[in-house]
Amino acid sequence: MSGGLDSCVTAAIARSTGYELWALHVRYGQRTEARELQAFHAVADALDVGAEHRLVCSLDHLAQIGGSSLTDPSIPVTDADLGASGPPTSYVPFRNAHILAIGVSWAETIHADRVFIGAVAEDSSGYPDCRPAFYEAFNEAVRLGTVAGTIRIEMPVIGLSKAEIVREGVRLGAPLGQTWSCYRASDVACGTCDSCALRLRGFQMAGIEDPIPYAVRPRYA
Amino acid sequence: MSGGLDSCVTAAIARSTGYELWALHVRYGQRTEARELQAFHAVADALDVGAEHRLVCSLDHLAQIGGSSLTDPSIPVTDADLGASGPPTSYVPFRNAHILAIGVSWAETIHADRVFIGAVAEDSSGYPDCRPAFYEAFNEAVRLGTVAGTIRIEMPVIGLSKAEIVREGVRLGAPLGQTWSCYRASDVACGTCDSCALRLRGFQMAGIEDPIPYAVRPRYA
Repeated sequence: MSGGLDSCVTAAIARSTGYELWALHVRYGQRTEARELQAFHAVADALDVGAEHRLVCSLDHLAQIGGSSLTDPSIPVTDADLGASGPPTSYVPFRNAHILAIGVSWAETIHADRVFIGAVAEDSSGYPDCRPAFYEAFNEAVRLGTVAGTIRIEMPVIGLSKAEIVREGVRLGAPLGQTWSCYRASDVACGTCDSCALRLRGFQMAGIEDPIPYAVRPRYA
Repeated sequence: MSGGLDSCVTAAIARSTGYELWALHVRYGQRTEARELQAFHAVADALDVGAEHRLVCSLDHLAQIGGSSLTDPSIPVTDADLGASGPPTSYVPFRNAHILAIGVSWAETIHADRVFIGAVAEDSSGYPDCRPAFYEAFNEAVRLGTVAGTIRIEMPVIGLSKAEIVREGVRLGAPLGQTWSCYRASDVACGTCDSCALRLRGFQMAGIEDPIPYAVRPRYA
């Protein structure tokens, strides 16, 4: 659970289908990590995940490795270009594999059999590690690389648009007002980075007012 | 490169086939991590890997997650039982997936197209993440989860016995005397933990004297 919209709704879906939630948050040297951690705890509180069921990990090596505007201060966070092809500057190379590996190691240790992740294929025009086929291949690696081979990764929102995710979150009473998505700021969301643009467009297409504050709210839909 | 035998010989093989080496070392809270780091640098020095081509990462969350005698002080390091089935207490859940993910993220950032790992299937009676099929599945996840899809993981010693790895290392002039394998001690290898037992048996079956000091040298072959 990053503290963002997609993982919040994913957690609400997992809970609504009967799973007990254990919540993983990963810091990786991104600019807004303190704000995201705060959002993670606020979302976990709202979903009744006890403190003893939360794990906060630091992947400092993703910042050491660099290559992304999220973790390298020398690369600026660009404004969104939702029509562009290729990965945006915010792409962190192979990031989701690290997050999945932690989730699987934790699941194997606590004898959980499902790892939920809020990956969204709509973002995958630019992020290769958000493609459904990536998760299918990773699931096969999990089956072969763990002792019992019974852990599965689930991506319940991967086929949804952002607007559908917003609507599903509202339907399930997910704490959307506690989430944080902006890559640039930690007090008032900028409204123009990749993440704000995707989020705002989703709320606009769902016809729902985004409850968090923005510096500017361009029309993306 | 853990600082151990298998990754040392793997690096020597990669170099002998024409690759420029960039060396990754991962600490994960294991008991002997300081000794392994020292061995990593000694091996990298011997293989002429410049300091600017080395990356040392800490996976502290593997110790946070626990579940292994390597990272959890409350679980003793047991003596080897090379005939036992199931993973030994030293198994760190899904560990190699974390190491591969770092290697792939680094490779994608520096535009390398191969990630070598010294996984050995002989160990895989107990470690599921040493099975060849795990690497094949992970390679598919790498192809689908990276931008260019051209990075491949190579496991040149995965099909070799420890004795064959020792012989290959000697043939290539790999710095075997600089390596460290013991899970238990940092000055004189114990000779009886899983890792010492596999290593000593390999040297004994190769008919070569292991150049490092041991407290005891049982006959395993």
